[in-house]
Parts: sequence; C-alpha cells; structure tokens
Amino acid sequence: MNNSYWIWYPGDFEHYHAMKQNFSRVERGCPWPAFWKSEGFRNRVAFRREYALKEETRFTVFGVTGSQGYVQVGESKYPFGAEIVCSPGPVRISVHIGCIGCVPSVFVQGDIIRSDDGWLADDYDADPVPAAHSRYFTDPDRDPAEWAYTEKVYEPVSAEQVCGGMLYGFETELTAALELSPLREGLPIPVVYLGESRAEALDTENCYYHCSPDPADGRCPRQALRFAFLPDCAPGDYAIRAMHQYIDIPVRAEFQSDDEELNRIFAVAAHTFMLCSGAFFLDGIKRDKWIWGGDAYQSLFVNHYLTADREIEKRTLIALRGNDPVTTHVNTILDYSLLWLLSVDSYYESYGDRAFVDFLWPKMESLMELCMGQREEHGFIVGRKRDWVYIDWAEFDRDGPLCAEQMLLCEAYRVMAKFAPVEKCGLYEAERAALLEQLECCFWDAEKQAYIDSFTSGRRHVTRHASIFAILFDIADEERKKTLARSVLFNDAVPAITTPYFRFYELEVLCRLGFLEEVLREIKRYWGGMLKLGAVTFWEEYDPDKPLEEQYEMYGDPFGKSLCHAWAAGPIYLLARYFVGLKPCSPGGTEYTVSPRTEFFRTLQCRFPMGEKQLRIHLEHGILNVTEEQAAE
Amino acid sequence: MNNSYWIWYPGDFEHYHAMKQNFSRVERGCPWPAFWKSEGFRNRVAFRREYALKEETRFTVFGVTGSQGYVQVGESKYPFGAEIVCSPGPVRISVHIGCIGCVPSVFVQGDIIRSDDGWLADDYDADPVPAAHSRYFTDPDRDPAEWAYTEKVYEPVSAEQVCGGMLYGFETELTAALELSPLREGLPIPVVYLGESRAEALDTENCYYHCSPDPADGRCPRQALRFAFLPDCAPGDYAIRAMHQYIDIPVRAEFQSDDEELNRIFAVAAHTFMLCSGAFFLDGIKRDKWIWGGDAYQSLFVNHYLTADREIEKRTLIALRGNDPVTTHVNTILDYSLLWLLSVDSYYESYGDRAFVDFLWPKMESLMELCMGQREEHGFIVGRKRDWVYIDWAEFDRDGPLCAEQMLLCEAYRVMAKFAPVEKCGLYEAERAALLEQLECCFWDAEKQAYIDSFTSGRRHVTRHASIFAILFDIADEERKKTLARSVLFNDAVPAITTPYFRFYELEVLCRLGFLEEVLREIKRYWGGMLKLGAVTFWEEYDPDKPLEEQYEMYGDPFGKSLCHAWAAGPIYLLARYFVGLKPCSPGGTEYTVSPRTEFFRTLQCRFPMGEKQLRIHLEHGILNVTEEQAAE
Repeated sequence: MNNSYWIWYPGDFEHYHAMKQNFSRVERGCPWPAFWKSEGFRNRVAFRREYALKEETRFTVFGVTGSQGYVQVGESKYPFGAEIVCSPGPVRISVHIGCIGCVPSVFVQGDIIRSDDGWLADDYDADPVPAAHSRYFTDPDRDPAEWAYTEKVYEPVSAEQVCGGMLYGFETELTAALELSPLREGLPIPVVYLGESRAEALDTENCYYHCSPDPADGRCPRQALRFAFLPDCAPGDYAIRAMHQYIDIPVRAEFQSDDEELNRIFAVAAHTFMLCSGAFFLDGIKRDKWIWGGDAYQSLFVNHYLTADREIEKRTLIALRGNDPVTTHVNTILDYSLLWLLSVDSYYESYGDRAFVDFLWPKMESLMELCMGQREEHGFIVGRKRDWVYIDWAEFDRDGPLCAEQMLLCEAYRVMAKFAPVEKCGLYEAERAALLEQLECCFWDAEKQAYIDSFTSGRRHVTRHASIFAILFDIADEERKKTLARSVLFNDAVPAITTPYFRFYELEVLCRLGFLEEVLREIKRYWGGMLKLGAVTFWEEYDPDKPLEEQYEMYGDPFGKSLCHAWAAGPIYLLARYFVGLKPCSPGGTEYTVSPRTEFFRTLQCRFPMGEKQLRIHLEHGILNVTEEQAAE
Repeated sequence: MNNSYWIWYPGDFEHYHAMKQNFSRVERGCPWPAFWKSEGFRNRVAFRREYALKEETRFTVFGVTGSQGYVQVGESKYPFGAEIVCSPGPVRISVHIGCIGCVPSVFVQGDIIRSDDGWLADDYDADPVPAAHSRYFTDPDRDPAEWAYTEKVYEPVSAEQVCGGMLYGFETELTAALELSPLREGLPIPVVYLGESRAEALDTENCYYHCSPDPADGRCPRQALRFAFLPDCAPGDYAIRAMHQYIDIPVRAEFQSDDEELNRIFAVAAHTFMLCSGAFFLDGIKRDKWIWGGDAYQSLFVNHYLTADREIEKRTLIALRGNDPVTTHVNTILDYSLLWLLSVDSYYESYGDRAFVDFLWPKMESLMELCMGQREEHGFIVGRKRDWVYIDWAEFDRDGPLCAEQMLLCEAYRVMAKFAPVEKCGLYEAERAALLEQLECCFWDAEKQAYIDSFTSGRRHVTRHASIFAILFDIADEERKKTLARSVLFNDAVPAITTPYFRFYELEVLCRLGFLEEVLREIKRYWGGMLKLGAVTFWEEYDPDKPLEEQYEMYGDPFGKSLCHAWAAGPIYLLARYFVGLKPCSPGGTEYTVSPRTEFFRTLQCRFPMGEKQLRIHLEHGILNVTEEQAAE
C-alpha cells in the first residue's frame, strides 16, 4: 500500500494553497486577502491509466473533500469509496472528478492499481500530462484540502503576573495553536493577546492578534506568537501550552566555527528561515504571510545552502506565476516578474532539474512576452497603469524608465536565452545585446562613473541599486565593477540602502568583489546587534542606533515590524558561500569547490547540502576535510 | 433598506452556479460531473464606490460564506459584520474580498451606503466594471453560495400497497425534497426509491435515484420524482410529502382555445418547461441536469413566449460561454458554439437589450475567432481532435466538412456582422458571402435538388438537417425553399428526423413554409399521443408506435429516458407564433403583429408576453381583440 499519493493536475495544488496562504493574513480582527489578481485551479479533471493485470486485484478511489466524481473501469462506473474488483487482463481506468471549493484530487488505494507515478491528468483541453503529487499527502484520510501540519508542544518558559493578568513567554517565536486548559471551574472564555514581543502582547489595543480558544478543544487558531497575555487572569487559572504547527522540511546545514557569535547568527538565521518556510516561502510569519516574488528569490539563495528542499521551491515558483494567459505581474510588481524568471535559473543551477524548467517554459515565455510588450522605443521596460515598479523602498528618480529595472530585464534575457529552444536563443541574445548598448548609452554617467536612475528627467540622480545589479549580473565588466565599488558602494554621498531586502544584494556584491572583512563586520554589527537585543529570530529591519523599545514600529504601525522575517536569513548564504567557500561549479552541484577563508576561522565543523549530496566540512589546524554522504532522504 | 443586493463581479455568479449545476448529476449513487472543461470564477475582487454624504450614516458589510475580507473607508479598515459610522462629506469606500470556494460577493446594508446599483467591481486586472446582482439575492442572510428555492408542499395523490412496500404517487413530476415522518416508533431509516414513472420507482435495481432521509429533518436530497417506493413498509408507517423546490419565474402565458387537446398540450408543455427552468435552462430534471447549448438555444424560442424572463437567459448565456481565453467549444460541441452565437441574436431580438450584447461582444469575438481558426481550405469549419461535431443523432456522412455545420457558420457570420462595430461588419459579411458561394459549389446537388452531407466522400448522401437549416437561416431563396420542401421534407426516401430536438427545427421550417395543417396534425399525434399515455410532463423522446411500458428505455438504459424534458415544450412556441400568429416586428417587440389562423380555432383566450409588454388576445365570433398591459413585474 506504500507509495500511493493524492494526485492532481500539475499546478492546481499550488494555486489552491497559494490562495489559502495569500488570503490568510489577519490584522486586529480584519482579514486582508492579498491585493493582486488571484487565480484558481481547474475544477474538472480526469485521471487515466491502463494496466495489464496478471491476476485479479481490488482497489478503492477516494475523492478530496467536497468533490463529485466516479471511477470508470472499462464500461462500468463506480462511486468513490467503493471497492472495485478487476479481473486479469488489460483494463482501462479513468477517475472523473469535479470540485469547486478545492483542488480536485484523488487517492487510489490498492496493491496494484494505486495512485503512484504513471497516472495521466486530463483537463479536457490540452493533451493529458503526468499527474502531480506531494510527498506530504500519502494518507487517504488526510486529503490535500488542508496541509497536515507536524506538531511540537512548547511549554511556556516564563509566566509573569503583570498588568492585572498573566503573561506567558515561550523560548522562541512559533507558529502555534495556543491551548488553554482551565484549572478551575466557572472561568469565562478568555481573550488572549499575542505578541512577537513582550511589549506587543501587553498592548491589548495595538497588538496584531487576539483570539479566544475554541470551547470544544481549548485551542486558538494557528498564529505567530512568542508571548501570550491573558488580562484579568491569575496564576493557576489556566494551564497553557503552544502547539507549534509546521511542515517538516529537514534542515541539512550546520555551521560551527570558533567564532561563537557567527555560530549563533547562523543558528538563529536558520531558525528564522525555517519558521518562514512552509507550504511556500513566506515573507514573515506574523504579518503578510503572503508569497512575495522578491522575497522568494532571496529565499532560494538561503534554501540552497540550508535544506536544498526542491519541493518548496517548486511549489513557490508555480504559485507565484499563476495561470496563463498572464496579464498582471507577479504580486503586481514588474521587477518581481523579472525576478521570477531569475528564480527559475537559480532553481536550475542548484538542482540541475531541467524537467521542471521545461514544465515552466511555456509560462516563462508568456511572462517574458508580457514584459517585452511593455517596452518603450529604446527597448526599456516601463510600468503600465496598474503595475508597481518597485525595486526597493528608496528615493529613486522615477521619471521614465528606471535603470535598475533594465538591469533585471537584461538578466532575464540571459535566462531566457539559456533555456530557450535553440531556434529562439538568438532572439533573446540579440535583445540582451541591444539592451546593453542602450543601457550604456542612456544610463551610464561617465562623469559620475555611475548609473543614473533616469535619463529622461535630466536630474542624473544616482542610487546604489542599478550599480549593485550591474555587478551582480555581470553587466559591468571587471574594470567597471572596481570603479563602481569606489564611486558608488564605498561613496557615502550615495544614499545608503535602507532595507535588509536590498542590503542582501549589496552584501552579496561586496563578497563577490572580495570585501569579506567589510561584510563580516556588517554581519556582526547588524545581525549580532539584534542578538544583543535578545532577538530569538531575525527581524524584517533593524536600526543599530535605536534601543529595543523603538524597534517594533514599521509602516506607521506600532507593531508593524515582523520579528521573524525570511530575508533576514541572508547570513546563511553569505557564510556558506563566501566564508566557508562552498560553491557549485555545475548545475545540481555535481561539481563544487570548498575553499574556506581561513583568515576568519581557526576551526570549522559544518554540514551543507550540495544538491543531492550531503557534505561534511571540517577545518582544524589548517587542515580541511570534506566528506560526501548521500542525503538522508 | 430595500433594493440592496448581493453583488459580484459580472459573470462570476453564473460560472459558480453553472459548475454546481453541471456537477449535480447523480446516477444510481454515482455522481457524474459534466465532461467538459469547467471554469471558475474570480477569487479576489474589490467593490468600490464614492459617496458625498450629507449627513452621518451607518452601514454594515457582509461577505459570502467562506470569504475573507475587509472594508476600507478612507484610511480606516473594518471587518465584515461591523457597523461602520461615516461622517458627512466625501467618502471613498472599497470592499475587499477573497473567496476560494464560492463566488466572492458582498452585501452592504445601510440607508444610504448600500449595495444597490452604482458599485464598481475590480478584479485587479481589467479596469473596474459595474458590479452585477440578481433579484433573487436581496437578503443578507441568504447569500449567493446557494440558491434559495421557493417551496411548495405536495401531498401524495395515491398510496398503494405493492411489492411488499408502499408506493406513493404525486399529481405531477416534481423537483422535490421528499419528507418522511415516521408514524410509529422503532422504524429503521428507510431507503426510498424514486421514479419519474411508477415502473421506475418499483424497479429498485434499475431506478435512477434512491436515497434515505436525513435523520435530523426527515428530508431526502432534492431530486426529480413523481413516484416514491418504500420497500418493506406498510400503510401507516410514514407520513410522506414532497417539498417541491423551484426558482420562482412567473409564467406570463396562457393558451385557451376551443380545442381542448391543444389547450392541454400547451399547459403540459408549459409545466414541463418551467420544471426544467431554474438557475439555468436545463435539458431535463432527472438525468443530465446539465446546461447544454443546443437545448438552451431551443429553450429561448419557448421562453420568449412563456415567461419572457430575460434573467434566466442571461445566466444561461454567460454560463455556457465560460471564460476567455476560449480553447474548447460549448459543451465540447462545435455546433453548440455556433448556436451560442445565434442564441445571443435570439436574446437580442426578444428584448432589444443591446447593453447585454455589448457585454458579451468580446466573448462573441473570441469564440468566433476560435471557430474561424479551424476552417479548411474552402473556408468550411471542421472539428479538431477533441471537438464533438454533433448536429443531431443521425446517420450523417461525416467524411470531411459536414454541410449542416457550414449552414450554422453562415448564420453565425450574419449575427457577427449584425453586432460588430462598424469597421468589422464588412469582414463578417464578406466571410458569409464567400461561404455561401462555396456551399453552393460543394454541397448543392442539382440532380437530387438537395444539400449533401459531404462533398469529399463521393457518396452524395442526403439528410434533412442541412436543408432545414438552409430554410431556417434564409440560405436558400424562396424558390429553393419550395424545392427543398418537395425534394427533402416531404420526400420519404430521405431518412426521417428521429430526435425531438431536431424535429423542432423541422416543424419550425414547415410552419414557415405554411404547412400548418401538417404541423398541427403532428403536434396532436406526437404530443397528444404522450398525453393519451398519461404523461403529465413531456418526454425527451416518444415513439407513437410503442406501448407505455416500452417508452422508458433510452441510451441503452431501461429508465434512461427523461420524462420531463425542455426540448419537448416546442408546441408553446409553434402555437404562439404560427397559430395565434404573434410575431415581434422589431427587437424587444416594441412592434408586433397578431394574426390568428382562424381556420384552426373558433375561440382563443390567450395571454402572452411580448418583451416588456403583456398581451391579452381574445378571439370570438371572428372578432379579434388584443389588449396591452404593462407586465406585472
């Protein structure tokens, strides 16, 4: 009975759960579904398979919650749930299912006839394609309408009588269903105020979440929390614990060096990242919980060195891209569409999985077509009426085409040329070459030795972003990269990057240019700084010059800042790639190099994934030892 | 508080309920969702409106079952269900909603701020459009997730102790939830076998439906039934009644003449048709319950003379067409796509509602584009791999392009030219002219004086269908129409039409050619014949040469025939249009003629709708009296 899965039409599962995810944000009792075009799954599909049976066999088909359907065996029809007996000989089976409320999916249970690999999915439009499944859905009783979370119980590590109530603290931030058991009779159903910080939980007016336990099982809805405050409550009123609910993705990395601070930064970054990695890469666990294309692109960098779980990457890439025809950009953001194309390349480089790229290819092409359709006369991409041209929260000169956006387009052309069928490569290569020429002509300022944001306004304003991308995507040659370091990156007159999102690109670029000492100093100042303030997860943003009590505000909201944010996990990637010096040399990491920067460590005891491989890296007394083992999975 | 509606993005309501409808078929415990590409509704929309408030006002927004969302008033957010107070002055309101399982829709309750006409719907893709609503959804407590049926209680008119159980009969066929109340204690939960006929209910093996009442309320699921059989049951075990559940669409026609048989045929046809008309035009109430484009096209003919309810027509037209991009044909059937285009014209001619045609126009264009994309070198339309080229259950020579299909294409070109923006009319007119020429050249057989099915096979086979369409769509000139009557319609060597579906077109054509006596004779033979066999609703098919007990079989199933089928209601149209002689002369029937064929009646007392108008037609002693009143609604 093993190796049977719930099966569905490829992509439908991701589109369904992406909507659930993107509609799950709640703020102070107000649900806030993500503000972009949200797209559905197929509602009517069939699964088909032929067998040549050597003996009589029995099987049963189950349909997902809320579905209607039947099983056709030869000329006979059977309802879901019925045991079907098949005689020896050839048999043609089709499972028909319609479902409005969730992804149409079926589970076929049997010894021979079962939903393992080999079923075709048919949507009554295109030719049938291989059905898809997930390793998390192998139990006929737990269907893909809901993710089945793994649970871990956390007891509070502190209980404090304060402000007329009880404040409970947990050792770390969690995504948990709080469970309250009354310890005496006659207590009313309490309201619980949750917080990522002590301050937030105690601020019953401004904290993000409050909830009441379900009288049936005493559980509150699954939410991000580290602290829980029960007003009008005394010690001994309730036994309280948190059922942390997560999707089990094994962590395959460990970083131990003689630098304790770095070790802790790596560990807290890993913890942060895993909390933000569930069905999809999320931005953070308290606030948006949306699947953002820019955040996801950065999550790929980290994930390749932390879990190398390609399934979450595939789910996220499918979910972000949505259905064809594509008429709006990823999360409405023009740059996120381009970053999505770059994400596919990043995925490919890590796993060498060409089949998945081929699966996505039609959607890469249609997305690129959308992008190319909105270029002005120089070939520069510009936003349409409803597009968001983001790049970063920064004071760009946004008159006309924005330089950094063109850098992304240039890199997207490279990715398209790389994966295009041979007859189309030349097209994208030519577009890239033409764009490079126009970029140089319109945006390079020889006097400032920098790229300007806008060539139409006449203001010749310089920000760091275009230069960072020029280095990152090898748009600048080696000579110019050095120039840019001097004229932009180390030029205090150019406004500093303010977001950790773009700071990651800046640090990456500094690493590439060899400024490791500067990067290490920054890691310790910024991430080390958060730890000194007691952080147990890394934050969406951090201002080293402010005391703890002023750190929680963001976006004009007193507790608007997320204290557990995926993009703050960047040190994992930076430490692994540039300090441990572990780099794949070929897609999937079949070849790789390890060259630790021994000027920063005396000892290293690390584990890292490299595609399918699991590496142990040991450095002591100047001797490096790298051992390979097959990944556990 | 009046005139507030549940509102949604135009089309979403229809796509949602069409799926529910098309997934509702069940046969002997086996659900059978319709086998074509089924398409969803938007999942994330916003509704927007601005007000200039003269005084403080309050309002509350409700979201449909299972939705997530909030209300934004200026810069403030409120959850659904909260009373919101608005100060005087200008205010901008947006209601944001995400819903996976059903059509995202909201109800705004308030004195001034409420969901009446004037809201815009935004899907984060196209520019906002006016939100849509239905007159059936005006109660905040009954949301559009489910149709709220009107109920009428029917007591059984017969109770018969037979085959060891009890057989209950109702005066007519119903779509009802059977309600069973045990009259003594200790009875087990019974299984009830339903039938459109006595024979079906008693055949517990082969009857279509069996069910058990819900122990909570004693009700069985809503199903078609006229008879209910409870095996192992005695008189006095149960009180039984049927809760007929329907959507209240007022019938606006009545036919009373001195011919009692015609009166009954009209009444039973009207009853049959109304049973098959709910959220959409259905084929029948027992079996498919699917929304078929060919059946719906015929239902339009009848409905224009029976209810003139344009809402069911709009719902059906929207539901059939689905979303863009269109890649598959209506119900997978090539001719049904073309008939859908003809349906739009039929709708327009009846109501003069150009706004709705303009709303559909982009989808008319894309569907026509799909059709035109599958023409061969002569400009003839042919089926693709997964298309069903139907026309009728008949022995066509299906080699190469099928003649009748080209007739439909020709008429579809005419419809497109009629509604196209002026710069595109010429295109469709030219296509039509070219097609007519090729039709004549390839399919007209001068020797047989008939259209042949196929010009590629060399068999020169003749069926009636192409000729009927040629007359119906004025492809043949008056001279040729007469020829076709002789050489095809009254030629016994040409195989007879076997389905009531196509027989309707044949009778229509005979009426047009003036063969009213022949048509009347056929109406009495065929529909009158069913009445003589005790029919209380008209059947999907009827063979006058068979006894009652052999009438139930169809499609190889002993009770496969539907005994309440919409396409059997054709006499309503034929009697009204050709015998009462009521014809609109302009779109919407602002002008019309009434010229009863007095050779068939001495008296007539009729009511008919004519677009918005309600007509009374009175004929006695050779004096015709026509009075107009405003329609009640």
